[in-house]
Amino acid sequence: MALTNHKFLLAARPVGMPKRSDWTYVEEPVAEPKEGELLVKLSYISLDPAMRIWINDVRSYMPPVGIGEVMRALGVATVAASRNPRFAVGDHVSGLFGVQEYALTDGKGVNKVDARIVPLPKYLSVLGMTGMTAYFGLLDTGQPKPGDTVVVSAAAGAVGELVGQIAKIKGCHVVGIAGGAEKCRYIVNELGFDAAIDYKSENVSQSLRNHCPKGIDVYFDNVGGAILDAALAQIRLGARIVICGAISQYNNTGPITGPSNYLSLLTNRATMKGTLVLDYIDRYAQAGAEMAAWMAAGKLKSREDIVDGLATFPETLLKLFKSENIGKLMLKVG
Amino acid sequence: MALTNHKFLLAARPVGMPKRSDWTYVEEPVAEPKEGELLVKLSYISLDPAMRIWINDVRSYMPPVGIGEVMRALGVATVAASRNPRFAVGDHVSGLFGVQEYALTDGKGVNKVDARIVPLPKYLSVLGMTGMTAYFGLLDTGQPKPGDTVVVSAAAGAVGELVGQIAKIKGCHVVGIAGGAEKCRYIVNELGFDAAIDYKSENVSQSLRNHCPKGIDVYFDNVGGAILDAALAQIRLGARIVICGAISQYNNTGPITGPSNYLSLLTNRATMKGTLVLDYIDRYAQAGAEMAAWMAAGKLKSREDIVDGLATFPETLLKLFKSENIGKLMLKVG
Repeated sequence: MALTNHKFLLAARPVGMPKRSDWTYVEEPVAEPKEGELLVKLSYISLDPAMRIWINDVRSYMPPVGIGEVMRALGVATVAASRNPRFAVGDHVSGLFGVQEYALTDGKGVNKVDARIVPLPKYLSVLGMTGMTAYFGLLDTGQPKPGDTVVVSAAAGAVGELVGQIAKIKGCHVVGIAGGAEKCRYIVNELGFDAAIDYKSENVSQSLRNHCPKGIDVYFDNVGGAILDAALAQIRLGARIVICGAISQYNNTGPITGPSNYLSLLTNRATMKGTLVLDYIDRYAQAGAEMAAWMAAGKLKSREDIVDGLATFPETLLKLFKSENIGKLMLKVG
Repeated sequence: MALTNHKFLLAARPVGMPKRSDWTYVEEPVAEPKEGELLVKLSYISLDPAMRIWINDVRSYMPPVGIGEVMRALGVATVAASRNPRFAVGDHVSGLFGVQEYALTDGKGVNKVDARIVPLPKYLSVLGMTGMTAYFGLLDTGQPKPGDTVVVSAAAGAVGELVGQIAKIKGCHVVGIAGGAEKCRYIVNELGFDAAIDYKSENVSQSLRNHCPKGIDVYFDNVGGAILDAALAQIRLGARIVICGAISQYNNTGPITGPSNYLSLLTNRATMKGTLVLDYIDRYAQAGAEMAAWMAAGKLKSREDIVDGLATFPETLLKLFKSENIGKLMLKVG
């Protein structure tokens, strides 16, 4: 083999928005797998808001990516060489392969995926961590009941688009908050949300009152900041606030803005709870099967926003923080 | 009867700390009870942080006290005249009688209390709303398990002193946060807390790390602000944050400061939940019996900070917000 790998290493801890100079792009020969290892060639690399957390010098639910290490990322790949009996050349697999063209792995945490069931990118969206996050965050942490009013922010994003559709499947009244007319049209016309609020052109508090006349039973938050506060002001007795992310706050250079309206939890005896997909690993298979069935029945759709070229990683990542993606953002590796 | 009532009416909605000019002190003849009513003479009037909420022009879990209305307050009283068959002259009763010397009531929400079991002031502390708030907030919302680390703020206050002792009864490691050496000595030496943190002289974050080496399982918050943030930074996986109050924020003239560290809920898959005693009315009797037994066994103590004179109400109320009380603050009516 005379293969060449390309990869992005973390060069510096970003202050605010990550810049190209926070990364090092490296070209190097691909090493051969040792006994028990396999070499995979990446097809698609998942870009996620959580990446911004992983590169801070703080241990959250995972240790931070170290300076000089390959940037952490989920991906789908094809096995190029294998000295691991679980995997054969040509198998499609998913795993935490990093932002690079080739990855060597011992196979731990690597799962086979089947491109005959759904196209490979869907294993990073509906049938990947993104879909699991939506499924368990909404159903387990949010506990929606038929007839509930469910509101989701970043509603045209990778997780939000699924949360809203799953809530519809469960018989809820669903309102999505998204930025711009195109996203709002997408979630209502293509995905079947009951209403959309364009936070760029509307007063979110007023629109929430209009679209949620009984108040909010479940608020699934991906953004934090002012929109979280607006939602807290409209919750009902016993509401559940699912904290999945806070993309509006991740590039702050100062402290995170906490929700000024958190005492609405007291007034309404409501719950705010964090959700993390890693807690549900033993239920991924069941959830994946259910979501695949919903996809086959046309009840669960998704868009993938696929950008060509590994080398575009530093700029493509910023689409998430500039709210420029619709659906799941990923890189296609050349 | 030629009795004279004295009462405090809300004269203006306070901005910041309530001033004497926000109240009107009125002297008037006492009216006679009509058919079905009873007249009670107040003995003790409960002063509670929630009073600051009730006088804002916002509907929270109760409508606000209107301008010109008698200030809302819990009290214990003696029946002075009765045309209600449930009550006889001389009965001791508790209820929402207001900040006044005499109250006329139709008996709804009025309960008989027995001064032979515990002294009357205890019916405003351990066996009143205060005790019920501590009991249900900790046990129902906080869900402490034996061996858990429980932290409570305003730990020498009316609710906090009980929360810590109930947590000790349940086999927890209990750390109280209070202001000043006297309060800290009280909760450790007299009440049996495992440790106290004096927020006026210590770095709360550092002291929490010292006293909670495994992290916090249950944080019972009465104060909000910087102390809530310090606690959020030290919670463990699956922690429960009980939001009972936010006394540090009630007299803000600007917006409430939300918890900047709320994303710790995500990292730790933790829950922040509001608690309100009114949800547990049907279980008060059972909780009261259990707490009375703990009191009789010497396991549950309380202090009452009793200030003489109805007329002192505007200034005495401020003791709560200046952190000057130890235990339950109340007025003794002349």
